Amino acid sequence: MAEPEALIYIESDSKLGLQAQIRQKLVESIHLGIFKPGMRLPSSRKLSEQLGVARNTVVIACQQLVAEGLLTSRARSGLYVARRLAAPAYSPHAPGERGSITGPWQQWLKSRANPDIARIAPADARDYPFCFLDGQFDTSLFPVAEWREAGRYALGSGDIGVWSAATGGLDDPMLIEELRTKILPRRGINARAEEILITVGAQQSLYLLAELLVDASVSVAMEEPGYPEMRHLVQRRGAPIVHQPIDGDGMLVDGALDDSRIVYVTPSHQAATGVTMSLERRRALLEKAAQRDMLIVEDDFDCESNYKGYPHPALRGMDRENRVIYVSCLSKVLAPGLSLGFMVAAPELIAEARKLRRLLAGQPPRNNQRAMAHFIRLGHYDALTASLHRTFGQRWDALRQALNFYLPPWVALAPSQGGTVLWVQGSDDLDVARLVDEAARRGVLVEPVDHFYALSRRPLNCFRMGVSGIPAHRIREGVARLAAVVREFTAGATEHLDHCVGRRLLRRDLQVTIPGAVMRTQRVYGEPVEILLHADGSMTGRAGFAGEDRDYGRWWLDGDRYVRQWQRWSYAEPASYAVVLDGDRIKFYLESGFIEDTLAFEAAVIH
Amino acid sequence: MAEPEALIYIESDSKLGLQAQIRQKLVESIHLGIFKPGMRLPSSRKLSEQLGVARNTVVIACQQLVAEGLLTSRARSGLYVARRLAAPAYSPHAPGERGSITGPWQQWLKSRANPDIARIAPADARDYPFCFLDGQFDTSLFPVAEWREAGRYALGSGDIGVWSAATGGLDDPMLIEELRTKILPRRGINARAEEILITVGAQQSLYLLAELLVDASVSVAMEEPGYPEMRHLVQRRGAPIVHQPIDGDGMLVDGALDDSRIVYVTPSHQAATGVTMSLERRRALLEKAAQRDMLIVEDDFDCESNYKGYPHPALRGMDRENRVIYVSCLSKVLAPGLSLGFMVAAPELIAEARKLRRLLAGQPPRNNQRAMAHFIRLGHYDALTASLHRTFGQRWDALRQALNFYLPPWVALAPSQGGTVLWVQGSDDLDVARLVDEAARRGVLVEPVDHFYALSRRPLNCFRMGVSGIPAHRIREGVARLAAVVREFTAGATEHLDHCVGRRLLRRDLQVTIPGAVMRTQRVYGEPVEILLHADGSMTGRAGFAGEDRDYGRWWLDGDRYVRQWQRWSYAEPASYAVVLDGDRIKFYLESGFIEDTLAFEAAVIH
Repeated sequence: MAEPEALIYIESDSKLGLQAQIRQKLVESIHLGIFKPGMRLPSSRKLSEQLGVARNTVVIACQQLVAEGLLTSRARSGLYVARRLAAPAYSPHAPGERGSITGPWQQWLKSRANPDIARIAPADARDYPFCFLDGQFDTSLFPVAEWREAGRYALGSGDIGVWSAATGGLDDPMLIEELRTKILPRRGINARAEEILITVGAQQSLYLLAELLVDASVSVAMEEPGYPEMRHLVQRRGAPIVHQPIDGDGMLVDGALDDSRIVYVTPSHQAATGVTMSLERRRALLEKAAQRDMLIVEDDFDCESNYKGYPHPALRGMDRENRVIYVSCLSKVLAPGLSLGFMVAAPELIAEARKLRRLLAGQPPRNNQRAMAHFIRLGHYDALTASLHRTFGQRWDALRQALNFYLPPWVALAPSQGGTVLWVQGSDDLDVARLVDEAARRGVLVEPVDHFYALSRRPLNCFRMGVSGIPAHRIREGVARLAAVVREFTAGATEHLDHCVGRRLLRRDLQVTIPGAVMRTQRVYGEPVEILLHADGSMTGRAGFAGEDRDYGRWWLDGDRYVRQWQRWSYAEPASYAVVLDGDRIKFYLESGFIEDTLAFEAAVIH
Repeated sequence: MAEPEALIYIESDSKLGLQAQIRQKLVESIHLGIFKPGMRLPSSRKLSEQLGVARNTVVIACQQLVAEGLLTSRARSGLYVARRLAAPAYSPHAPGERGSITGPWQQWLKSRANPDIARIAPADARDYPFCFLDGQFDTSLFPVAEWREAGRYALGSGDIGVWSAATGGLDDPMLIEELRTKILPRRGINARAEEILITVGAQQSLYLLAELLVDASVSVAMEEPGYPEMRHLVQRRGAPIVHQPIDGDGMLVDGALDDSRIVYVTPSHQAATGVTMSLERRRALLEKAAQRDMLIVEDDFDCESNYKGYPHPALRGMDRENRVIYVSCLSKVLAPGLSLGFMVAAPELIAEARKLRRLLAGQPPRNNQRAMAHFIRLGHYDALTASLHRTFGQRWDALRQALNFYLPPWVALAPSQGGTVLWVQGSDDLDVARLVDEAARRGVLVEPVDHFYALSRRPLNCFRMGVSGIPAHRIREGVARLAAVVREFTAGATEHLDHCVGRRLLRRDLQVTIPGAVMRTQRVYGEPVEILLHADGSMTGRAGFAGEDRDYGRWWLDGDRYVRQWQRWSYAEPASYAVVLDGDRIKFYLESGFIEDTLAFEAAVIH
C-alpha cells in the first residue's frame, strides 16, 4: 500500500493542456491527503503508461511541482510528497469548491426528514460532567470482554461459512432460535421462527410497518406526548393521527380510539413520560382492538429496566388474535454500535416485511446476527441484562432520592415503575427553556419535552432526566446544581422567611410543639411519608404505600433552629431549619431564608 | 441458563380456571421448545410465587402433566420435561393456530414490495452442479482468515470503545478515511469526508436517493433493460420513467433524455447486459446533464471486474458540477454477509441522506465499519480485489470460450469488457422460458431476462449466465449440457447434413480445396477469427481485433471427413467434421449430422 494507485486520467477535451492537467490532478490528490506527506509517487514511467502520454510530459509536470516545493526528489529513489507542504503555487480545484449545480440543493429535495424531530444530543454531551440525557451511554457499560468472546466465535471458519453466504433474505437461524427460546419467553411471548424478523435497529421495524400498514386511509392512534420519530413516520405516509393522552396507567383507552385502525403504544415505559401501562389498561386495549378490529404496534424499546413490581407480560404475549405487532431491540447498551432490532408478528406480515426490507436496505449484517446468537447462548446476554438492571436501578433510585432531597416543593414526577428516564413537572411558573440553557452552562444537561408533543397545547414547565449516561456517584451533585437554578428561576414565587405566612416558632415554641408531633408529606414521586417526632429526641419515619421504607433518626434544637438527622434518609446528613407554623401545616426554611418544604402537622395529643 | 425463566402469567378474567391456565402455559412452552425435553422445570415454589397462586394449585397442575407423560418427576430433584414427549392429552393453543384477525392480511397491507421484482434464486441454487446465476457466490471466495484478522482488531478494547458509542449518526471516521484515500482514488474519485455516507448495502443508498430526490413531478431516465429493483423504487415514488435503450457503448444519450431530471445509469457493467459505457458516451452524458440541468445517479454495483482494457474513471470522477451521485459497495463477495455500501455526493445531499437514514433504519453497524476499515488498512482489501479479479477473469474467459466452442451458430453475446455476467442472445426461434426449465432439470441454472424489462417489447430468446457462483473447472460441462438443450429446442431450424444446401466435399474434393485456404468467422463475443490452412497439414489462427490471440494446429483427412486440432483453442481436442461448400461459405457438420459452424471461405490462389 506504499504506492497509492490513484486513478489519474486525462480529459482529451479539457481546456487545460496535458501538463497542466497532470499538475492539477497531482496537486488535488496531495491536497486531499490521497498522496500523503512523505509518500512516494508512482514512477513517471507508470504514470505515463497510465495516462497514455509521453513520459517527458509527466516528468516536466512533476519538475514544476518539485520547484514549487510540493514534491521532493530523492536520487535513485523517485519523487515524494513534501513533508512540509508549501502553499501550492496555484490553487487546485479542491473538491469542496466543485462548481455547484444551478441553484441550491433545496430544489432537488422532494422529501426531507423533519429536522425538528432529529433531536440529537450535542456532540460534546459526554464532556458535560452531569449529562442527564436519555440514550447517552457511558461506554463503561459495554460488555467488552463478553462481546469479544462472542465475536470470536462468529469469526470461526464454520460460522463465517454460514453468515457470509447469500440466503435470499433469511436471518441467521441461530439468532432466531436464541431469541425464540430465551429472550422472548421472558417477555411473555411465544413465537415460531417465521413470526420473527431481525431489523437494523428497532427503527427499521417501525419504518417497515409504517410503509406496509399506513397510508392516508388509515387512522393511527398515538400517545401524546409520545415518540416523535414514529409520529413523523406516520405523518410521512399521510395518515390522520388520533392523539391519545397518558395518565398514570399509560395511554387512555376510551371512545376516542374507536375510529383508529392502528394503535401505536409503548407499554413497558411510555416513550415520553416513562409511565408503565397497567395490566388492566392492557386488557382494555386488547379488548378495544378486538371490538373495533384494530392492529396494535407495541414498541418495547426499553425492555430491560423494570425496578418496581413484577414486569407485565408484553401485549403480544396476551394477544390471541394476532393483532399485536411487537417491536424491540436486544439491548439499549449494545444498540448504538450494533443496531440489532427485531419484530414479532403474524407470519403473513413478516413475509411482506422481509420482502420490503430487501428492497429498501438489505438485511442487518449476518455476522452480527451470528455474534449476537453466541452472545446469548454463552449466557452473556443474561449477565448483561442483570448487570444493567442493577446499574440503572441504582442510578434511578439515586436520581429519585436526589430530586426528593433538593426539590420537594418545586417538582413532581410522573408515576413510573422503572426505565432509565424520569418525567419531571416543575412549578407552574418554571420556564424550562431558560432552565435547560442555564443548567447546561453550569454543566448539567436535562432534556426539554417539546418534541414529544404533536399538539400545540404542551406544558412549559416539564423536562426529562435520564440515567443511562451518568454514573450513580455524580447524580447528587448534578441535581444539587440543577436545584440551584430552579430556585433562582422561581425565587419570586418562593416563600421567604422575611415575609412568611404563619407564626415563627422560636426555641420555647419548638420545645412545646415538636415532641410527640406527627408530620405527613409526599415524596416527589408520590409515595406518602409519615414522621413521628418522639419526646426523647428520636424520630421514626415510614414511607411508601405500605410503609415499607422505614428509617430512624434524631432531632434537637440549636438556638431558635430545629435540627434533624436520619440514619439513611436525606443522605444521613444533619439539616438545620427555621420553623413556621401555618394552621395545620409546618414549614421549614433554609439558612438562605428560602422555604425548603411544607408538611402536614399534627401536634401531640395530651392524654 | 439451565432453568428457563419463561414468563408465565395468569389472566384473571380468563374463562379457564387457574389450574387449566397453568397446564396450558406449560404445555405450550414445551410444545414450542422453550422448555426442552430433559430440561428441569422451575420449582413449584418459584412458579407459585411468580403467578401469585397457591403452591398447591401449581403442584396439582403439574401432577396432571406427569400423569399424561409430558413431565417426569425425579425424587429430590424436581420436575423435568419428558425426553420422549407423549402426545398432549388436550391440544394446547399452539401459536401457529392463534385465532386470526378478521379477514385476510391483504386488507391491512397498504403498500407491498412488488413480488415480481423480488426475483430470488431458488433456495437450493447451490445444490445445482452448474449454477450460472449472477450474485451466487461460492463461499470459497470469502477471505476467511483475512476477515478474521480484521474482525479481531475491531474487537480490541480501544476499538470497541469507539464503535460502541453513540455518535449522532456519524460513520466510523477510520472507514471513511480508508475509503477516501485508498478505494475511491482508484475509481477516479476524490472526495472529502462529508461527501461520503456508509449505508446498509448499496441498496439503502438507492432507497435513500429515491426517497429524497424522486416524486411524481420528477421524470427519471432508466436503462431498458435495467436494474428492476431501482425501477421499482422509482415507481413507488410515482415518478414518470423514460426507458432508454442500451447499445454497445452503454445507455443511449439522445433527445429522449431531454425532459428527465434524473438519470440512473450503471456505467461500469450495465446492470442487465454487462455492457461497459464508453468514455465518449460518458462525456456525452455529463454534457447532456449540464445542458439540461440533470442529476445523475451512477450505480457502480460491480466495480471489481474489468478484465479487458483500462477501467474508465467513474462518472463522479469526471463530474465538475456535483451532478453525479456515486453509489457502490465494498465487495460483492463480502456483501451478502456484511451489507456495507456507500454513496458519494455533494455534502448538502449527504447531510439530508444521513438524517433520513436515521429515521428509516439506523446506520450500518459500526463494529463492521471498523472491521472493514482494518481490512482495508491491512491490505486485505487489495489482495481480495486482485484475487477476485483473477478468479472471475478466469471464469469469464472460460465461459466465453465454452460458449464459443459449443454454441457458435446459435448465440451471440452482448459486448462486454468484464463483469461477472454475460448476456446471451439465442437464435430467433429459441424459447428461453422452456430452455431455463429444461436446463434446470439437467442441473444447469441460467437466468431469464424478463424482469430486466419495463416495457412489454422484450426479447424471448435472451438469457444471462453469471460466473460468480461456479468454479472455472465446471464451466465447460455446464455449457455443454446447456448446448445440448439449445440444439434440441432449435433442431427444426438447424441444418442437417441429410438436407444440406451446397456441395458435400468428399476426400478427393477436400484434398484439392483445403490446402492454402483461408477461413474467416467471428467469435460469439464478436472478435474476428482468421484461420490459414497450410498445405503441409499445419494451420495458423489469429483472433481479436488486433489479431492478438494466436494459435497453431494441424489438420488432416480421415476418410471423407476433415479433422483438426489446435494447440490451445477448442480445448486442444481433435474434432472431425463432414464438410459442405455453399458458395463462399464452408459448413462443418458434427457426427450427429447437425451443423456446428459456418465460416467464410477463400480457396488458395494458384500463382
